[in-house]
Amino acid sequence: MIAPLRFEGRVLEILDQTRLPSEEVWLRCTTPSEVAQAIARLAVRGAPAIGVAAAYGLALAQPDDFEAAAEQLAGARPTAVNLRWALDQVRAAGPGRALDAARQIERRERDATGRIAKHGAALFGTAESVLTHCNTGALATTGSGTALGVIEAAWRDGGVARVWVGETRPLNQGSRLTAWELAQAGIAFKVITDSSAGLLMSRGEVDRVIVGADRIAANGDVANKIGTYPLAVLAQRHGIPFIVAAPTSTIDPNTPTGADIPIEERDASEVTPHGHPAANYAFDITPAELVTALVTEQGVTHPEGCHPSPAGDAADA
Amino acid sequence: MIAPLRFEGRVLEILDQTRLPSEEVWLRCTTPSEVAQAIARLAVRGAPAIGVAAAYGLALAQPDDFEAAAEQLAGARPTAVNLRWALDQVRAAGPGRALDAARQIERRERDATGRIAKHGAALFGTAESVLTHCNTGALATTGSGTALGVIEAAWRDGGVARVWVGETRPLNQGSRLTAWELAQAGIAFKVITDSSAGLLMSRGEVDRVIVGADRIAANGDVANKIGTYPLAVLAQRHGIPFIVAAPTSTIDPNTPTGADIPIEERDASEVTPHGHPAANYAFDITPAELVTALVTEQGVTHPEGCHPSPAGDAADA
Repeated sequence: MIAPLRFEGRVLEILDQTRLPSEEVWLRCTTPSEVAQAIARLAVRGAPAIGVAAAYGLALAQPDDFEAAAEQLAGARPTAVNLRWALDQVRAAGPGRALDAARQIERRERDATGRIAKHGAALFGTAESVLTHCNTGALATTGSGTALGVIEAAWRDGGVARVWVGETRPLNQGSRLTAWELAQAGIAFKVITDSSAGLLMSRGEVDRVIVGADRIAANGDVANKIGTYPLAVLAQRHGIPFIVAAPTSTIDPNTPTGADIPIEERDASEVTPHGHPAANYAFDITPAELVTALVTEQGVTHPEGCHPSPAGDAADA
Repeated sequence: MIAPLRFEGRVLEILDQTRLPSEEVWLRCTTPSEVAQAIARLAVRGAPAIGVAAAYGLALAQPDDFEAAAEQLAGARPTAVNLRWALDQVRAAGPGRALDAARQIERRERDATGRIAKHGAALFGTAESVLTHCNTGALATTGSGTALGVIEAAWRDGGVARVWVGETRPLNQGSRLTAWELAQAGIAFKVITDSSAGLLMSRGEVDRVIVGADRIAANGDVANKIGTYPLAVLAQRHGIPFIVAAPTSTIDPNTPTGADIPIEERDASEVTPHGHPAANYAFDITPAELVTALVTEQGVTHPEGCHPSPAGDAADA
């Protein structure tokens, strides 16, 4: 399994995902500031993975710099709530036990992916054509992935015939990362432009859409990579199930609705190299009513009114 | 005004749009085969412009090669009906009068854009935020453009405050060509990824969508650049007018519905440079029911049941 990071001997090594698939370059981070920079420039990305990276980043802080480091790490990216969730746990543990807390978060998130894959795969029929967006595989988590982990488990069970991979502009996490993971796993796939989903659905070539999430509001609204909301609207029009897979650490009970989720806006140069003005929002909001099912480590629910349970209180126990 | 081609002294010069906006390179075509290749690799693109280019291309044929040249040019791209429409007119004129026929088609298409701009601009209110897709400007026509010509005319009238320009993957006709044309015209715009339209609409930042067309079936279904159909579905959800602007040469009475329009599939390498498999459909179909209004040189109609009229029989006379 591909790992997006590894912590050994007070060094957090991060696989630089901006260089994939061309090069496998590992960044050696020894300070919280280096980790925050790696998160901000997407060397490590994916809501669960940046939570774990931030936790280890805070464990690298000097005791007298602990709170300031937590603030810096929390500010690296605004939308994924996992980042703040993980930092809150490490802060609660305190400088002396920060590394233990980080390791525990990594384990918990890895365990969650295995359960998500199992619960999600059970939703599939036989030999489905599945469409996904962005990257939600091992690179985005510590473990087997969220939506892509479900797809891989369903593939092993015969539930998936092929995968449509949205390239995911502007940084191409789909065509660079998801395609790379699927090729390594030997799963049949084709890359498509993000705007091809409508044609494929209208031709009956999509049986299911499954995506991850960066934050799920208390009412079930889902913030995820820009382009997710159009997929949900199209899926509804064509009567296609639209599934969200995410650990409960992605659910934010303190965010009432999707309208309360801050949407990260990134630099125009990511969208156009020609120096023209651009609006580069990294996420959009899918209303709960468009989500057919939410898959977490605790099981499968319709997202409206979903609430996180304490860790360990798993519905699938 | 930017021109995509010019014919002088038995040479068709084509502005190579694949090199824009970085370089202004003109291709000198002296045979139908060279013109067909330029059309196939999108050196010249846009349904009206490829019709005119093909007409001049056929005018370059030797008399004994006339029919074979017409076949080769017609096969350069399958979706835009303007190509076949223009070639049919030049074939009807015959080898001796082919150049006159080509010049007449260029004039007719240029005149049409002026009328389309006038009719379309009248639909606008005050200071609207308008979203468009692909390139439908002077580069795509011989004249002032279709949808982008409407936007420019509405801008001059105060009907447009700013333009959202979808980058238009995979070949970026929006971020390369439309942005370049709008910058030259001094119109306020921002480039967006194609999948940003949903977020912008949900935030109330889009007042109108206007696009061109590559073929309009007899029942009003519209084939246009891939990604148009998702925009129409999103516009319907948000109660936003969705306008199609095209000359009547784009309407094909011999194609009953959108399902009968051939959709060009292009090479995977345009979508992904990583050697992975890809599905690269160049167009999609927007059902007539999602089109608020169709703007042609003859006026504004709802597309359902629209039929082309003979040239010169203009409703706005």
